[in-house]
Amino acid sequence: MAEGTTRRGRSLVHADPAAVPLQDALDALADPVRRSILRELAGEPDFTRSCGTFDLPVSKATASHHFAVLRSAGLLEQVDKGPRRLNRLRRAEFEARFPGLLALVLAEERAGDA
Amino acid sequence: MAEGTTRRGRSLVHADPAAVPLQDALDALADPVRRSILRELAGEPDFTRSCGTFDLPVSKATASHHFAVLRSAGLLEQVDKGPRRLNRLRRAEFEARFPGLLALVLAEERAGDA
Repeated sequence: MAEGTTRRGRSLVHADPAAVPLQDALDALADPVRRSILRELAGEPDFTRSCGTFDLPVSKATASHHFAVLRSAGLLEQVDKGPRRLNRLRRAEFEARFPGLLALVLAEERAGDA
Repeated sequence: MAEGTTRRGRSLVHADPAAVPLQDALDALADPVRRSILRELAGEPDFTRSCGTFDLPVSKATASHHFAVLRSAGLLEQVDKGPRRLNRLRRAEFEARFPGLLALVLAEERAGDA
């Protein structure tokens, strides 16, 4: 962890991916904006993208909700660094819990980009 | 096909699983009643269970909607045989389109039964 970050800060509750119900995972992934967040994160180093840097077609409050849903579903780890909330895609943990599921979401991007 | 069945009858539109968008698949699977239909079907021979034989906690109209959503998402093949609409889980086709996804849904049953 870089200096100045607080991993799992007081206000950030992280789900244990091993305990996430399939219902929560499917609910989280059934939203196209949330899938776009995951795909964008997949292309960047861990904890380099803050929530505010995503160009999402929703209000700030709705964007915050989307990040919270992804965190609850075991898909994101977040750390607060000063005013910025940095994100990491929990790729390995989620894959261990739901084999193949995140890969489908990330592959959807490549299809759309082609 | 057994005598008396009409595969892909006039009123039954079947999706090409290869062309189903991930959004449609996730929407179909994000409903617990629809997942329960798939799990029940997975344990039975093809085209032996009619829609009316599922004990679902919803109205008849809602149940019909659920079957239609599953068919549209490439998860079910249905044939009408007299008054009965028989179902087949399109396991191989759906697996080819979305590797691992249906397996997660069917594994959810085994966890719940254990």
